[in-house]
Amino acid sequence: MEAVQTYIENNKERFLEELIGILKIPSISADPAHAGDVKKAATAMAEALRKAGIEQTQIFDTDGHPIVFGEKMINAAWPTVLVYGHYDVQPPDPLDQWESPPFEPVIKKSETHPDGAIYARGACDDKGQVFMHIKAMEAMLSYDALRCNVKFLLEGEEEVGSEHLAGFCKEHKDLLTCDVILISDTAIISNETPSITSGLRGLSYVEVTVTGANRDLHSGVYGGAVANPINVLSQMIGSLHDEKHRITIPGFYDKVQELSQQERVDMNKAPHDEEAYKRDLGIDAVMGEAGYTTLERTTVRPTLDVNGMWGGYTGDGAKTVLPSKAHAKISMRLVPDQDPDEIVAIFTDHLKAIAPDGVKVDVRPHHHGRPAVTPVDSVEYKAAAMAMEQTFGKKPIPARGGGSIPIVSLFEEVLGVKSVLMGFGLDSDDIHSPNEHYGIFNFYQGIRTIPYFYQFYGELKNGQYRQD
Amino acid sequence: MEAVQTYIENNKERFLEELIGILKIPSISADPAHAGDVKKAATAMAEALRKAGIEQTQIFDTDGHPIVFGEKMINAAWPTVLVYGHYDVQPPDPLDQWESPPFEPVIKKSETHPDGAIYARGACDDKGQVFMHIKAMEAMLSYDALRCNVKFLLEGEEEVGSEHLAGFCKEHKDLLTCDVILISDTAIISNETPSITSGLRGLSYVEVTVTGANRDLHSGVYGGAVANPINVLSQMIGSLHDEKHRITIPGFYDKVQELSQQERVDMNKAPHDEEAYKRDLGIDAVMGEAGYTTLERTTVRPTLDVNGMWGGYTGDGAKTVLPSKAHAKISMRLVPDQDPDEIVAIFTDHLKAIAPDGVKVDVRPHHHGRPAVTPVDSVEYKAAAMAMEQTFGKKPIPARGGGSIPIVSLFEEVLGVKSVLMGFGLDSDDIHSPNEHYGIFNFYQGIRTIPYFYQFYGELKNGQYRQD
Repeated sequence: MEAVQTYIENNKERFLEELIGILKIPSISADPAHAGDVKKAATAMAEALRKAGIEQTQIFDTDGHPIVFGEKMINAAWPTVLVYGHYDVQPPDPLDQWESPPFEPVIKKSETHPDGAIYARGACDDKGQVFMHIKAMEAMLSYDALRCNVKFLLEGEEEVGSEHLAGFCKEHKDLLTCDVILISDTAIISNETPSITSGLRGLSYVEVTVTGANRDLHSGVYGGAVANPINVLSQMIGSLHDEKHRITIPGFYDKVQELSQQERVDMNKAPHDEEAYKRDLGIDAVMGEAGYTTLERTTVRPTLDVNGMWGGYTGDGAKTVLPSKAHAKISMRLVPDQDPDEIVAIFTDHLKAIAPDGVKVDVRPHHHGRPAVTPVDSVEYKAAAMAMEQTFGKKPIPARGGGSIPIVSLFEEVLGVKSVLMGFGLDSDDIHSPNEHYGIFNFYQGIRTIPYFYQFYGELKNGQYRQD
Repeated sequence: MEAVQTYIENNKERFLEELIGILKIPSISADPAHAGDVKKAATAMAEALRKAGIEQTQIFDTDGHPIVFGEKMINAAWPTVLVYGHYDVQPPDPLDQWESPPFEPVIKKSETHPDGAIYARGACDDKGQVFMHIKAMEAMLSYDALRCNVKFLLEGEEEVGSEHLAGFCKEHKDLLTCDVILISDTAIISNETPSITSGLRGLSYVEVTVTGANRDLHSGVYGGAVANPINVLSQMIGSLHDEKHRITIPGFYDKVQELSQQERVDMNKAPHDEEAYKRDLGIDAVMGEAGYTTLERTTVRPTLDVNGMWGGYTGDGAKTVLPSKAHAKISMRLVPDQDPDEIVAIFTDHLKAIAPDGVKVDVRPHHHGRPAVTPVDSVEYKAAAMAMEQTFGKKPIPARGGGSIPIVSLFEEVLGVKSVLMGFGLDSDDIHSPNEHYGIFNFYQGIRTIPYFYQFYGELKNGQYRQD
């Protein structure tokens, strides 16, 4: 292990340079115009895996973006770890809010990263975190120090709902056989307070279209007599929360697991400075479901947010149009045991029920995923916790995450395997926002920590835990 | 007059061809990229005026788009008519809903125009209607048949609020001295039921921006704890109408003139087929203020419509963003005696009052105009009515219009002169919508009617009304 850590220390500048190369590829999976770039990123990842020593790496085409799969089976008696990650990125809009171009990586110091951070779309989510695993593998394999078998499954559609991953997993169940899935696509509480994500919210994402008249109309000639789809959609969206910021869709909370008083007390022990939180966001008040703290609202409570809305004239100046259509992209974050399909169904029923005469409402489901929880007494959680304790010098805190990685529940359903979410980002890394970045410290700390995970996981699985 | 009408009949095909040339110029005043085209349209209009015999025509530059002014002062003892119109057009968006390109005029038959209509942006609003006046002038001046003095004032900013017209009128009050203003920028009830617009709604147009956090956020990490500006703006907009579709802004209806029972009975005698109206719009129900008919809702009652709304991710696919900002363009149609400035003030106050903690609200006024009414017993109204009776063979109905021509109240304030709104469009001409068109019949009928207006107006003004 010492040799492995020394190798990492001696090669870390090169690791960073290689990551920069990968971050330059604008692999925006949501934008059909970038399909070629997504493919290019897949090729770059496969190449990096081969160079790290995972010679058995291939690219599988799907009806969407490709899937990169690599494996190194060393000893059939050893446990097998499957590393999952994604090489696609979120769209970089709004572009004018980036301080440097999203696909021209720049290293700069920031408040949370005094040692510097790399600014680029995908730096943290998830190219930077995937690349930690590839580089850790290179270090371990250079010294024949890997005591597990390893598989890599890297997809290009995570940011658009992993549409083709479920089919791939079902079709290639044997290829993907493993004991645990290791994912770095989450955050730690801070660089001083390591944590492991012990649960994730699920997601239901839908697109709503309200149609009034069959064409755009003059608001002077028709205004006042014909339903305006934007007014109607606004009213409908406005009615989806009550005064206590609870979601009003009948049945929405029926399957929500309420935490015990003790669980709530425990989770609120995690460091959280509400004033600093507000200052960072530039807001004078938080807003959320009455009776819950910010930490609870963002992790163990479900939400409903409009992610995008548009209709009518949105250009410069004024146009007195009464539009034919209004659109909204709406996502709901779900918690155990809410079911995404059921939620989409009751959402759709409710919207159609509250739609007034004079408009038509269409609800089109986008992607979705189930909420997931990793038990803290599992072997994989313990191995991850021990690995982090080695590098951070303190035990990580189990923390529920607010985001969604729908594939966690997919892997559980299809492969029957639990995932461990050992991520190294920070919530302030602006993933999905302009100026996404990833701490240089975090990138290196991840590479340093991963080899310990394999060591402890191998030992714990074999029932033989030795101190190195 | 017979010679004038014969001239029109013999030259009508050329008139149409010349109009087509002018409709090809994309003079979109709202779009800075088309500033050159707006100028080009001004030049074309000035050239057309000169060719029609208004040699004294010049183009005045403003800080915005130019103003075309022409005059023919024949006899100081005769009354002076000022023709107002605009050569700028609405933006053509959404382009994909046009059956033929907006600036490539096409002549096609339609349900309401069995003799054919010319399809192009600006065909009816207002290039086609302005051009009727120019061609009628050409016919009258060819036979020395004009018994009034005439001035033309054509602006290029009507669709963006006539920002520089008020200043121009104040500065050139003497140049604009006249007895009446004649405007063709409105509609008749149908080709079988001529009408004259006896009143117009006013307008207050504002742009609202709601800002939450200082940057776009990940809806998983922050969702549920931070105000979402789209949700908030939707809720605010939704609250601006109550269940009876009345506007909830305190004081909004304070100055609204309620019509007498008799006035309401009279105005509802105008032909209106609610089933045909719904069928034409493709809607199963109308929607509007409880207790009023569709005709009332679109003319004598004030409204509040969102003309455009946008925020967050509006591209293809799904992006789980919690946006920093949401925007809406909102217009209110006003009726006598609502004051646009007062309405903007109470709107702004109300929006700020209902904004929750955690967001900032900014309201930016765009353009506005006062409501206006033309008395049906005035000389100019009578002259227009008599002219229409000549060509349509029946008396026109006085009809209140739902749209806004803010310059009508401007002319009254600055020049102390009333306007007569003798338009020839149809409400179904899709002005401000894709596939705007103008009936060939209506274009020719306008050219035929206008010379009668000058004849009757001259005679009535001189107290000597002779039958021709």
